Amino acid sequence: MRQYLPLTDIVASLPPTVPFVGPETLARRSGRPLQVRIGANESPFGVSPVAAAVMRRAIDDLWMYNDPEAHELVEALAAYHAVAVSALHVGAGIDEILGDLVRIAANPGETVVMPLGSYPTFAYHVSGYGARLVEVPYVQDHVDLPGLAAAAQAEGARIVYLANPDNPMGTWRPADDVLTLLDELPNDCMLILDEAYADFAPAAAMGPMETRDPRFVRTRTFSKAHGMAGARVGYAITHNEVVVALNRIRNQFGVNRVAQGGAMASLADTEHVAHVVREVEVGRAEYVALAAELGLGHIESATNFVNIDLGSGARARATLAGLLERDVFVRMPGKPPGDRCVRVTVGTPKQRLDFAEAFRETLKDLAAA
Amino acid sequence: MRQYLPLTDIVASLPPTVPFVGPETLARRSGRPLQVRIGANESPFGVSPVAAAVMRRAIDDLWMYNDPEAHELVEALAAYHAVAVSALHVGAGIDEILGDLVRIAANPGETVVMPLGSYPTFAYHVSGYGARLVEVPYVQDHVDLPGLAAAAQAEGARIVYLANPDNPMGTWRPADDVLTLLDELPNDCMLILDEAYADFAPAAAMGPMETRDPRFVRTRTFSKAHGMAGARVGYAITHNEVVVALNRIRNQFGVNRVAQGGAMASLADTEHVAHVVREVEVGRAEYVALAAELGLGHIESATNFVNIDLGSGARARATLAGLLERDVFVRMPGKPPGDRCVRVTVGTPKQRLDFAEAFRETLKDLAAA
Repeated sequence: MRQYLPLTDIVASLPPTVPFVGPETLARRSGRPLQVRIGANESPFGVSPVAAAVMRRAIDDLWMYNDPEAHELVEALAAYHAVAVSALHVGAGIDEILGDLVRIAANPGETVVMPLGSYPTFAYHVSGYGARLVEVPYVQDHVDLPGLAAAAQAEGARIVYLANPDNPMGTWRPADDVLTLLDELPNDCMLILDEAYADFAPAAAMGPMETRDPRFVRTRTFSKAHGMAGARVGYAITHNEVVVALNRIRNQFGVNRVAQGGAMASLADTEHVAHVVREVEVGRAEYVALAAELGLGHIESATNFVNIDLGSGARARATLAGLLERDVFVRMPGKPPGDRCVRVTVGTPKQRLDFAEAFRETLKDLAAA
Repeated sequence: MRQYLPLTDIVASLPPTVPFVGPETLARRSGRPLQVRIGANESPFGVSPVAAAVMRRAIDDLWMYNDPEAHELVEALAAYHAVAVSALHVGAGIDEILGDLVRIAANPGETVVMPLGSYPTFAYHVSGYGARLVEVPYVQDHVDLPGLAAAAQAEGARIVYLANPDNPMGTWRPADDVLTLLDELPNDCMLILDEAYADFAPAAAMGPMETRDPRFVRTRTFSKAHGMAGARVGYAITHNEVVVALNRIRNQFGVNRVAQGGAMASLADTEHVAHVVREVEVGRAEYVALAAELGLGHIESATNFVNIDLGSGARARATLAGLLERDVFVRMPGKPPGDRCVRVTVGTPKQRLDFAEAFRETLKDLAAA
């Protein structure tokens, strides 16, 4: 009798896909190391020196399991944001939290709404739990808040997801408009507001942190301005009902012990994040000037990346390929209207110079082709 | 109109439970730090010094996301175990992998079988995905292999889980008998063989690593002999069909970057693990002698812990409580027959002395009570 492994109905129906091909995989494919790594919106300005010192010391404690409640980090985050401890949930990056949110709120077959071509990892989790994804096109490179509300109402959505500031576009909506969206959603529909880029955003984009609405979940991360992408620490600020539900299903020991200590130290080192934010502002302006010099437009960004407008999807894809041939790693939004752009993370001054050179050469080659 | 958050059918049905209360939580409850941490089968002999040095250096690279494919670690593990790269799957500890295995193989309502009171985190995941758990009692403190096979056949189980060597008992079964169990399972039933304690086990417990059976999954970890419990690195060795299925749903960027590098370095530092294994043998013998001195039995162990036999559940619970009052953290198996014991992790010589003192005092108090 043949032995075989039947998968669950949901998993059997899933295509073999990954939301992001990592830069390490790209380097393995080309057989050459990447020279300029500015494609994943990481912070090449690095970890806070204070946090790095804390983490180096903590290596000797790695024989102990991490605190599954991440209690000290939760207390520090609650104090930092002036919210109740009971409103905090820590996970192994926003990615893990997004998966768990889909799992607690969307039964198989139920509908989830997000902007068209927005965060692929969220879409991956929606499919992964057998829910149905409905995407709402961007309007003038901005998230369409009334469109998301209308789709959620029309489809009886369980969850609406958006990022503010938005990834991959870089644009933002005022906090008041996001709260209006929350009001306009079905009274039993979760709103996930992904604020991964909050540190780079204007004050008007960021609303009050405290909420009494059990439908509202904001997510934050140490992967961007804090420069700890490889540590895997994210968190949610939400109603305690959501925290309690997440605690019923989450991977209890998921957040690395050294990373927990590092996140606490980085949270306290506000000068480091302020320094990164200033550097990113300088770098964004450089990218905008570079685009203008080459006769190209850009999308205004409130994040640590800039979309440079190549005018068409074909030209953007050719530019991306030309950059990769030069061992420069950037990405591009996968769907219109952003797919006319290449999305370039703000690198160090050296990385920006290297990018500018490779970008000019790539465009010259394309013009000659 | 009242706003509320409806949970999925499965999550709404789950009790508010945690598989393990962490030692940090116990210390917060008592208001005093734990003095002797020998309850979670961690390795107080610590991280490999070579791996620690590698990880300290890697802190500066934490601004980069980890390789989501953990490619270098996967290659190192495949070489170490002499299996194909395509048979390897890395996750954030065995805990995460167990959850993902339940998710790919057990539809809601389907049956999963494990030894009675075996790994609580596995039971947590089974409930968490809405599957039905059937537990098979131990036989003379050993996993009942024919009983597991019979239950799986009778119930049409999707998954059978066992640990070898077993946790919480510490006993083991010969590899040949485990392979016989695999033969006796339904031809479409997954066998998860959790080998977290493999490094401490006799050779006869460990079978050949290569398998052509798509139902067979072994799991291993860096949390025990490698002393990296807080790093969160585990892996599975299995048929590529299972790896492919896991890749469709797993949290892609789940394994911390520093931890990946540390695991590779620790894998190469075979002398460190050999040293830990020798220390553990010495410590186990000490615990056995201590038990005998106090007129108590023990369960023979092939792991880094020993169950000391208190004769009854009531006396074991009272002993556990008495030890905790003395700020000594141990655990006890939750269900019979193991619940007549306290489970003591092999600590450092100093921890073992401290434990022996607290244990003698506790038993004296109980005798006087």
